Amino acid sequence: MTAILPHKGNLFREKVPGAVFVGNAFGKLAGSTQVNELGEIETPILLTSTLAVPRVVDGVMDYILTQPGNEHMQSINPVVGETNDGWLNDIRARRITSVDVAEAIRGAKGDEVEEGAVGAGTGTVAFGFKGGIGTSSRKLPSNLGGYTVGVLVQTNFGGVLTINGAPVGRELGIYYLKQQLAPGSAQDRADGSCMIVVATDAPVDSRNLSRLAARTMMGLGRTGSAGSNGSGDYTIAFSTKTQPTTRISNDEMSPLFLAAIEATEEAIYNSLFKAKTTKGCGRTVEALPIEKTITILKKYQAIK
Amino acid sequence: MTAILPHKGNLFREKVPGAVFVGNAFGKLAGSTQVNELGEIETPILLTSTLAVPRVVDGVMDYILTQPGNEHMQSINPVVGETNDGWLNDIRARRITSVDVAEAIRGAKGDEVEEGAVGAGTGTVAFGFKGGIGTSSRKLPSNLGGYTVGVLVQTNFGGVLTINGAPVGRELGIYYLKQQLAPGSAQDRADGSCMIVVATDAPVDSRNLSRLAARTMMGLGRTGSAGSNGSGDYTIAFSTKTQPTTRISNDEMSPLFLAAIEATEEAIYNSLFKAKTTKGCGRTVEALPIEKTITILKKYQAIK
Amino acid sequence: MTAILPHKGNLFREKVPGAVFVGNAFGKLAGSTQVNELGEIETPILLTSTLAVPRVVDGVMDYILTQPGNEHMQSINPVVGETNDGWLNDIRARRITSVDVAEAIRGAKGDEVEEGAVGAGTGTVAFGFKGGIGTSSRKLPSNLGGYTVGVLVQTNFGGVLTINGAPVGRELGIYYLKQQLAPGSAQDRADGSCMIVVATDAPVDSRNLSRLAARTMMGLGRTGSAGSNGSGDYTIAFSTKTQPTTRISNDEMSPLFLAAIEATEEAIYNSLFKAKTTKGCGRTVEALPIEKTITILKKYQAIK
Amino acid sequence: MTAILPHKGNLFREKVPGAVFVGNAFGKLAGSTQVNELGEIETPILLTSTLAVPRVVDGVMDYILTQPGNEHMQSINPVVGETNDGWLNDIRARRITSVDVAEAIRGAKGDEVEEGAVGAGTGTVAFGFKGGIGTSSRKLPSNLGGYTVGVLVQTNFGGVLTINGAPVGRELGIYYLKQQLAPGSAQDRADGSCMIVVATDAPVDSRNLSRLAARTMMGLGRTGSAGSNGSGDYTIAFSTKTQPTTRISNDEMSPLFLAAIEATEEAIYNSLFKAKTTKGCGRTVEALPIEKTITILKKYQAIK
Repeated sequence: MTAILPHKGNLFREKVPGAVFVGNAFGKLAGSTQVNELGEIETPILLTSTLAVPRVVDGVMDYILTQPGNEHMQSINPVVGETNDGWLNDIRARRITSVDVAEAIRGAKGDEVEEGAVGAGTGTVAFGFKGGIGTSSRKLPSNLGGYTVGVLVQTNFGGVLTINGAPVGRELGIYYLKQQLAPGSAQDRADGSCMIVVATDAPVDSRNLSRLAARTMMGLGRTGSAGSNGSGDYTIAFSTKTQPTTRISNDEMSPLFLAAIEATEEAIYNSLFKAKTTKGCGRTVEALPIEKTITILKKYQAIK
Repeated sequence: MTAILPHKGNLFREKVPGAVFVGNAFGKLAGSTQVNELGEIETPILLTSTLAVPRVVDGVMDYILTQPGNEHMQSINPVVGETNDGWLNDIRARRITSVDVAEAIRGAKGDEVEEGAVGAGTGTVAFGFKGGIGTSSRKLPSNLGGYTVGVLVQTNFGGVLTINGAPVGRELGIYYLKQQLAPGSAQDRADGSCMIVVATDAPVDSRNLSRLAARTMMGLGRTGSAGSNGSGDYTIAFSTKTQPTTRISNDEMSPLFLAAIEATEEAIYNSLFKAKTTKGCGRTVEALPIEKTITILKKYQAIK
Repeated sequence: MTAILPHKGNLFREKVPGAVFVGNAFGKLAGSTQVNELGEIETPILLTSTLAVPRVVDGVMDYILTQPGNEHMQSINPVVGETNDGWLNDIRARRITSVDVAEAIRGAKGDEVEEGAVGAGTGTVAFGFKGGIGTSSRKLPSNLGGYTVGVLVQTNFGGVLTINGAPVGRELGIYYLKQQLAPGSAQDRADGSCMIVVATDAPVDSRNLSRLAARTMMGLGRTGSAGSNGSGDYTIAFSTKTQPTTRISNDEMSPLFLAAIEATEEAIYNSLFKAKTTKGCGRTVEALPIEKTITILKKYQAIK
Repeated sequence: MTAILPHKGNLFREKVPGAVFVGNAFGKLAGSTQVNELGEIETPILLTSTLAVPRVVDGVMDYILTQPGNEHMQSINPVVGETNDGWLNDIRARRITSVDVAEAIRGAKGDEVEEGAVGAGTGTVAFGFKGGIGTSSRKLPSNLGGYTVGVLVQTNFGGVLTINGAPVGRELGIYYLKQQLAPGSAQDRADGSCMIVVATDAPVDSRNLSRLAARTMMGLGRTGSAGSNGSGDYTIAFSTKTQPTTRISNDEMSPLFLAAIEATEEAIYNSLFKAKTTKGCGRTVEALPIEKTITILKKYQAIK
């Protein structure tokens, strides 16, 4: 489980502008319709395992209902995303409790984010390697507002990995092909999903947050995702500016859009580079072999 | 809690075409994005109380995971709707358990549906009167296919009730006005929601089920709903034809559309006529006074 | 053709917040996707006849491109709606020219709106009677902001007319039934559309304008619309506040929502009451018989 | 202008399943709402220049209205896309006539498609080079159904070109940067659009065509598109199977999805490789320098 807090105050009373973009909805994300109707997020955002979604939603309710000042609250809209970690995790057991949820929320830190096979990324698989949690951000120059766009991903999907353009998956022989579609084409064996969370300190309203979220699909495309039927690709976007006096215009969104594309791409790479080989359910999923990968990236001049 | 079973077989293995239409999404409906992406419903549909949604979703998972043949299932998309019954129900307690869910599913009957202050309608309020569960249906003549459209509603919303055109709410002095907008205008004090389920035996695909669902908002409008910000008005539509060899055309939808409008209107009235005065949380919500209502309906010639 | 000007200035340089809601899209409305993406309207809104849409769009371009200050403009997004008046109008001829468009735009008046069989309503048919252009508005009391919601409709659709709850269509024997669906059910012979424009001086952003527009379907439902497959029911909503320093909250939308429902219902009635019997293409469509209608309304106590 | 014919028969009478996906709607595409409502396309698809859309729509109407058998037709929904070629084209003049439209439709060929600076691609600019029309396709192996997915693009957008992963734009010094976002980040000066048409002979219904269309954004992302605010990125998808007895399932879509991603990417490259240096409006846009590009591709081992 991984918790993201838009801010450290009482979120329900100080909601943040938000939006959910649906890339492909073979997924169980909770809370999206109200977020898009009202344009706001009123709880921490939690990521978890597919079948654990209701228990995490219930845990968020427990957490919110018991916060001081919320004694009479009768409506809460938790936002909980998931990917299916059933390959390494005993997913049917749904072991998560409300205590875990409260701990995850209280443990959320503003300064750094643990990446790799941690939290909601503990059991995920991406491009045939161990996936997990990854993050990245871009900061615009001051003449464009100086805003930051941060992205957190939970990677659990198929395709043939390319990194910064280099065909890492192909070189490593990790195709997981069902069938050859055409020379150079490939399809990962595993259906799977990518949950994406985009945060910005720019004063962006819900409509433009939705557009910002849509751009992450282009970043996902850059990494080699196969966009399969079974993917649950959702992007949750929010602004930390709760009551902006001004909102940035459509025109000013372009650099933020590019930032979201790039940060999504990089966050996916980071999820792979940080994830360690993981065992579960009698299976082992290997981490991306870092040294070999670096050799490949150099061969293709993707890094120097 | 109220359970609707699209058919009595193994729904997960024999999914039904389905769609969810969002009228106004101040609500916590679970499962809508996957239903709309894949065009199908794979579980019983449950209606409940707002904060009980996650526990009911979890209960549906328990039920499905333990059905014979589902031992290796790792993904389920329960569809659970809600309205907020916090006026009469100790909503924060979320007393529903997985046992209750299983019982509701097993108790679903094909022949008749209990209406009024029962199941998910036990604590709801509509137009200032006791609301609840209501149903209605229309059967097309054989030259239009002979199909049936059935509607079930969970009524919990505001406005000034009109019945078959007669201004029942106004005549009964039940305005619950915040303010007078203009002569004849009114706004119910209570925000609130209407969950609607539409079922048909016509071989309708997901796209046309979405359109069918959209028509229910017109039926809702006919009853005097105020369409307030705080309403969670969702319509879940499905066809019981699991693998139709033919699908009916766009043109053939028109009579089904009209049937959905009419059946929605009538189902809302039935939810009121069947609901008994109910007490809860130290409060009492009166049933629609049937005799007075009939007098009003006669006065306005809404009935003979 | 009917022109609506959100304001009298240079709209392209001072765009208004806007949204288009799609009720049923058997229609050719131009401009909706950009309006919803950018949340703004940058041209006058024109209503016309189905096949005349492109010529009117082109005419709006002519008008905008030749306005002072627009000499280098290379992109314009005209918003043009339509209903199909092919019963009374030689629709295939598409006689409208850019000169007509410019005249319609220049002739738009802020004080009063001509209703009935005029402009884009000249050849329309509603509920089997002569339809046309109708308008209505609601003004909120000052403690709710004092805002006004105005609605303009172009009525051209089927169903069985009810007015303020009274079954006018049924009493007048104007069913235009294809078939009897069930006792009391009816379906108009003519498919058809209702174009709706909602304007408000409340500082509403695009997201809430979309929600405001959605409510008009409930007003449409109240009048007896059959919601047929062949209807092109779109609602264009805009705010005249171009650069609001504050935007009203979700909660504050409820009275505006109710105002939109009521004004839509009333505007549809007005389009019928004002439309005169009209001949075209060798056909005659009778106006609503006012005296008989008033008798019916009195019988049902829909008026006093 | 470029015409795409889903088939050579009377399209209006034999409509094809279709869908329009909106990537970013700063564009004037005509016809999308009806296509998505009814799930079908009933005319040839035309691509053109932004301000020429209404004249092309009108031309399609002229063409359809005058086809034998269509003498009484009163409703047509042309689908016309565009990109803004105002840099090289005197866009305000809108020189296209109905005769041009009819010629484009009659000239459409089934065997081969001209690529580069032709038709609707004559005046477009992509990644700072001359863009245009490009096509590509993938054919699935017979065990996956043997279906073909073909893509046609009209490229007119910004970003920093990568080809098969190689940073061609950066190596060629064609950044057109507004500002540096971060090391390696870039944003093209020109806002701009990519129109995409996807055709398949697989029996795919409208819902799955919409999903297929959505995947093209991932292919677009792979080429380095900046996804700017000013882009009009729409994808029109259709199946040539007009009355399929069976439709392929959601599960069977995955290889088609991957095919659409790959074919979109490749079609964009082809549009650049085939486009010649073009002059217009006193400006010159250089073609992609093929030899230098090949050198770069070899350097990065993107080709052998």
